[in-house]
Amino acid sequence: MSFNTFGLMFRVTTFGESHGPAIGCVIDGCPPGLEISPQEIKEELERRATGRSRHTSQRREQDDVQIVSGWFDGRATGTPIALLIENTDARSRDYEQIKRQFRPGHADYTYWKKYGIRDYRGGGRSSARETTMRVAAGALARKWLRLEFGVEIQGWLAQLGPLRTDEVMDWDSIEGNPFFCPHPGMVPKLEEFMDALRKSGDSVGARVNVIARNVPAGLGAPVYGKLDADLASAMMSINAAKGVEIGAGFASVSQQGTEHRDEMTKEGFLTNHAGGILGGISSGQDVVVSTAFKPTSSLRLPCRGLDIDGEEVEIVTKGRHDPCVGIRATPIVEAMMALVLMDHVLRHRAQSG
Amino acid sequence: MSFNTFGLMFRVTTFGESHGPAIGCVIDGCPPGLEISPQEIKEELERRATGRSRHTSQRREQDDVQIVSGWFDGRATGTPIALLIENTDARSRDYEQIKRQFRPGHADYTYWKKYGIRDYRGGGRSSARETTMRVAAGALARKWLRLEFGVEIQGWLAQLGPLRTDEVMDWDSIEGNPFFCPHPGMVPKLEEFMDALRKSGDSVGARVNVIARNVPAGLGAPVYGKLDADLASAMMSINAAKGVEIGAGFASVSQQGTEHRDEMTKEGFLTNHAGGILGGISSGQDVVVSTAFKPTSSLRLPCRGLDIDGEEVEIVTKGRHDPCVGIRATPIVEAMMALVLMDHVLRHRAQSG
Amino acid sequence: MSFNTFGLMFRVTTFGESHGPAIGCVIDGCPPGLEISPQEIKEELERRATGRSRHTSQRREQDDVQIVSGWFDGRATGTPIALLIENTDARSRDYEQIKRQFRPGHADYTYWKKYGIRDYRGGGRSSARETTMRVAAGALARKWLRLEFGVEIQGWLAQLGPLRTDEVMDWDSIEGNPFFCPHPGMVPKLEEFMDALRKSGDSVGARVNVIARNVPAGLGAPVYGKLDADLASAMMSINAAKGVEIGAGFASVSQQGTEHRDEMTKEGFLTNHAGGILGGISSGQDVVVSTAFKPTSSLRLPCRGLDIDGEEVEIVTKGRHDPCVGIRATPIVEAMMALVLMDHVLRHRAQSG
Amino acid sequence: MSFNTFGLMFRVTTFGESHGPAIGCVIDGCPPGLEISPQEIKEELERRATGRSRHTSQRREQDDVQIVSGWFDGRATGTPIALLIENTDARSRDYEQIKRQFRPGHADYTYWKKYGIRDYRGGGRSSARETTMRVAAGALARKWLRLEFGVEIQGWLAQLGPLRTDEVMDWDSIEGNPFFCPHPGMVPKLEEFMDALRKSGDSVGARVNVIARNVPAGLGAPVYGKLDADLASAMMSINAAKGVEIGAGFASVSQQGTEHRDEMTKEGFLTNHAGGILGGISSGQDVVVSTAFKPTSSLRLPCRGLDIDGEEVEIVTKGRHDPCVGIRATPIVEAMMALVLMDHVLRHRAQSG
Repeated sequence: MSFNTFGLMFRVTTFGESHGPAIGCVIDGCPPGLEISPQEIKEELERRATGRSRHTSQRREQDDVQIVSGWFDGRATGTPIALLIENTDARSRDYEQIKRQFRPGHADYTYWKKYGIRDYRGGGRSSARETTMRVAAGALARKWLRLEFGVEIQGWLAQLGPLRTDEVMDWDSIEGNPFFCPHPGMVPKLEEFMDALRKSGDSVGARVNVIARNVPAGLGAPVYGKLDADLASAMMSINAAKGVEIGAGFASVSQQGTEHRDEMTKEGFLTNHAGGILGGISSGQDVVVSTAFKPTSSLRLPCRGLDIDGEEVEIVTKGRHDPCVGIRATPIVEAMMALVLMDHVLRHRAQSG
Repeated sequence: MSFNTFGLMFRVTTFGESHGPAIGCVIDGCPPGLEISPQEIKEELERRATGRSRHTSQRREQDDVQIVSGWFDGRATGTPIALLIENTDARSRDYEQIKRQFRPGHADYTYWKKYGIRDYRGGGRSSARETTMRVAAGALARKWLRLEFGVEIQGWLAQLGPLRTDEVMDWDSIEGNPFFCPHPGMVPKLEEFMDALRKSGDSVGARVNVIARNVPAGLGAPVYGKLDADLASAMMSINAAKGVEIGAGFASVSQQGTEHRDEMTKEGFLTNHAGGILGGISSGQDVVVSTAFKPTSSLRLPCRGLDIDGEEVEIVTKGRHDPCVGIRATPIVEAMMALVLMDHVLRHRAQSG
Repeated sequence: MSFNTFGLMFRVTTFGESHGPAIGCVIDGCPPGLEISPQEIKEELERRATGRSRHTSQRREQDDVQIVSGWFDGRATGTPIALLIENTDARSRDYEQIKRQFRPGHADYTYWKKYGIRDYRGGGRSSARETTMRVAAGALARKWLRLEFGVEIQGWLAQLGPLRTDEVMDWDSIEGNPFFCPHPGMVPKLEEFMDALRKSGDSVGARVNVIARNVPAGLGAPVYGKLDADLASAMMSINAAKGVEIGAGFASVSQQGTEHRDEMTKEGFLTNHAGGILGGISSGQDVVVSTAFKPTSSLRLPCRGLDIDGEEVEIVTKGRHDPCVGIRATPIVEAMMALVLMDHVLRHRAQSG
Repeated sequence: MSFNTFGLMFRVTTFGESHGPAIGCVIDGCPPGLEISPQEIKEELERRATGRSRHTSQRREQDDVQIVSGWFDGRATGTPIALLIENTDARSRDYEQIKRQFRPGHADYTYWKKYGIRDYRGGGRSSARETTMRVAAGALARKWLRLEFGVEIQGWLAQLGPLRTDEVMDWDSIEGNPFFCPHPGMVPKLEEFMDALRKSGDSVGARVNVIARNVPAGLGAPVYGKLDADLASAMMSINAAKGVEIGAGFASVSQQGTEHRDEMTKEGFLTNHAGGILGGISSGQDVVVSTAFKPTSSLRLPCRGLDIDGEEVEIVTKGRHDPCVGIRATPIVEAMMALVLMDHVLRHRAQSG
């Protein structure tokens, strides 16, 4: 779908700016009967929360979510579910400078070119704050998928700047460190790296992987509704995403067919270079996606830019910014996986024989 | 949008199987007045044609396109434009074997899991033959974008198996070789590599890049209708695609913010790591996308697979297959770029202030 | 949905002009496995065929439908089904006059205002010829609904100009006369009326009713996806439609609540003023819809109009035109009922608990 | 579009139940720059407010609307605009009876059949309270259409039970009486009629007309995106609507073509039986629509019904209910007209030549 609505049968429409009174979403198409509580949603939100460690932005939001509609006696009723979270830590400060400047690498310039007007406070609509509602909506999808099919979704940090962490050493360790790093031995290195980075004033990119287990075969659709196409769109729609891979991804470029094709025996597939998707349709294997996030552009280190009069200015960004937005991306990537799978399960139910 | 329809305002619905009587598409939303001829469409089709060189499948289709509707006195009328191409070289042969087997790495298995029935002849709907109509529809979008904004779209082979060809040495050479290789000195090496590969019976992946110049700023939309999200979906919907990058893509993971952010002066942006898109909206810079294609799975080299009874069988694929589908992907990638930009231009016109 | 596509889950996209080489449609979302033959589709088409009697247009089309795709071994495969019918009786004649004139009551003027270009031959896209594909697509929906739920859909002529025929005296007689009149005693009067009308050169409106039996309860959705809202849209999208009623329709304006509300007992509803829909959702009662069709505007009796230069001209329409388009509307109304119900069954399957 | 979202380019998604904490909507696609204030929205809401007179429900809501997002410095920014209104007069009372009963003529039964769960308090999602957000969203569309094209939309009560009021005697009087009656001499009769009706405990239907002036020619689209089809859907989606007419509507059934067709001279159209729409596209004439509303089913007069165990019960509905919902329908009908026109203006801008 498009614009501020995601999904066709499980539709999530998000709204809200970083420094507005609240952010929220409307979930239309949730199967009736699903039991859900604000607390369950909040638990997911806390995983992405800013201020989780010294390595992320220090903005601290309560993220108390209110279920405004579509919910009765603790269960979804089938009517639209609106979720609302107040913005409580949107600091009021002087925005005079940012108001007139376009930060390089940021959406300031393009929003202004598109709309001719922008809510410049804290990035407005283009702020990472928006991803909060993806995680909130994803919590419902995730729970339903788990109850209905036993789908389990787990993301992890696969690379932080130059440090590769993609080999999963210990699944259980992922939730135990602020990086969602699956390799306990790497955590001190990541901390050291981040401390030095923060000191330098610079930022760095990251890669986040996600796996979905127990995905039923048959999800997806030819030709433009392919499961992998929708996953690519979903991941690329996250702030700062610059690349998406399914299964072997770019590594498949230098693979040979005899290596890439996943052979089948009665015991199942022998490998999973496909990432669980063939011809745009899930095969029953684990669905595996990798997403690249660029380094934050909002830095206190000065750079050359323009103001709204077209004059050249030196840009220095103050405020609270993550030196690596990818650190907090894991729950968001998981949420997008859940939303895509949920939507495709409902679509598949509609059009089965 | 979804399923077999692509786009929201410039909607392309494709239909047809590899070995059915014809393939076709319906283009709904083409601005009235556009001059177009079957010959112009055919010229684009010839660029992707099978049988273009010895390195691609030897299926030879005339690809004579008929404009069935929405076209009067040589111009689009604003009503739906149906295009139709007969399948003339769909060899009738014995499909008894393939009928009962699932080729690893192919959509055979997943179509069967999804639908419980499949047109197994030549891959049916999942055949690369479907991409013909993407190129046909793309021809209209491309022409309109060029006339209206001077948009120029050019793709090229960036990597063939282990051979990197991404550095563009000579733009004019791209159309002069069967690989769309922008590096004339590499062409003999590519030929040598492909000859050896074909002899071996194996296949290999490829990476194809595409650039769009003169794209107006302001295309795209937050949050789920981002231009890069739609490009990712478009490219990933092409057969065999496994990864998509915008601008610096996965390289941005190890970049620092001071390197990645594209500074601006009065002369314009100093670099283009963003690939022409910021916050999901075009900046006016060149839009740059890279797509990974996996190696073909249809090989004459045997492998282990299952049949429809769940029995293990040795699979050997006969027939005419490209040892590297990526070689012919360049016009398809260009077409998808054109379709996405076209759709977003129309969307932007709708919602401007 | 919109434009030339109808439906969300069972999507029908039609294309083609009255005097182009062919008309056709693409059906996306048909459940795989449905057995269907071109002959079955043709049988439905013959019910709406022009030239069925002396009371309708004398254009005679073979309406041999070709199933181009999505169909294998006599069954739907789940991929898009394209249907194609050649225009064989589109008489080539001099269109110089109509080319420059806007026929009052016709879409000539508005197409020209919208698109600035029009295929004036035989009404182009706005010709009733387009409804052929609605009936063709409806044939599939109708068959599936009958097999799956036993849904039976029957339309009838309820009024022809001043002659009311809405009371169904004999269901079996409907198919036995060229008017779809359910009141055998009225048929001679209708014939007499039509003969006089044709002689006079004038035209007249009609009202067509349709009933769907065995519709499962639960179809439809709040708030903008109501079953009655979609039926209203479907019927109003038919050429010449000017009004739609569900159940008691406009008669409910002067009803009192005690009369209108349909009481329930263990044996079921006692009345059906609701027309089978409550709160936008089917109740399990018969779904009943009535549609008003205006009189044809294409008359040989002259009237005042404008040409494309804005000059006043006397307009006389030659050619073969129905003096009452409503006579042939019954199969079209049935088809739209089938398409709406089909779409809603699939939507309901997606979003059940 | 569908479900709880209305429109394609100007999309309104509403949420909220009658007795939940709040109702709201998200407007996606509003052109940036539109000046709007909560007070302007509230003024429209007051026109539909319950408790406007003794003839409507006595529920009294403040309807203070909060603009949560997409709004900066008093203007729309192009990002989604969320509106929120708290439910302040949702009386907490004993719902034990209604909880177990299906009120005839009401959505109780169908929601339960569809979802298996329902928020029975005050009708939940099927309450007329939902229409508040249509009026709120309509206020933005209305203002933009007026500023951009001078479009003026006016509705009026055309019939109240047996009393016809469709002849407009005095446009200025419409806003001056609680019925939106355009015929000052009829107002005392309406009051008398309503007083007697209220006393009797029964209810009655109504017909509401609406006219839109200065609608530009060219809005609408063939074949399923016709302006009249979308208007029919929009009106039929309002609670209690049972019929929709465009222009002459059902009267066109007994008209002859020479009467119905609207002749044109240099001075313009001589009549407007078409209701401003030809071939699904606006002609530049006034767009005229008439909608039938059924009598309220919620009565204190007992009737026969079922409970959730399938047992027969006598149903008596207490609480505050309008004896004629049509009385308050005028602003809602106007809002739907505005939403449809707005959406089609944006769609037309996208696809012009």
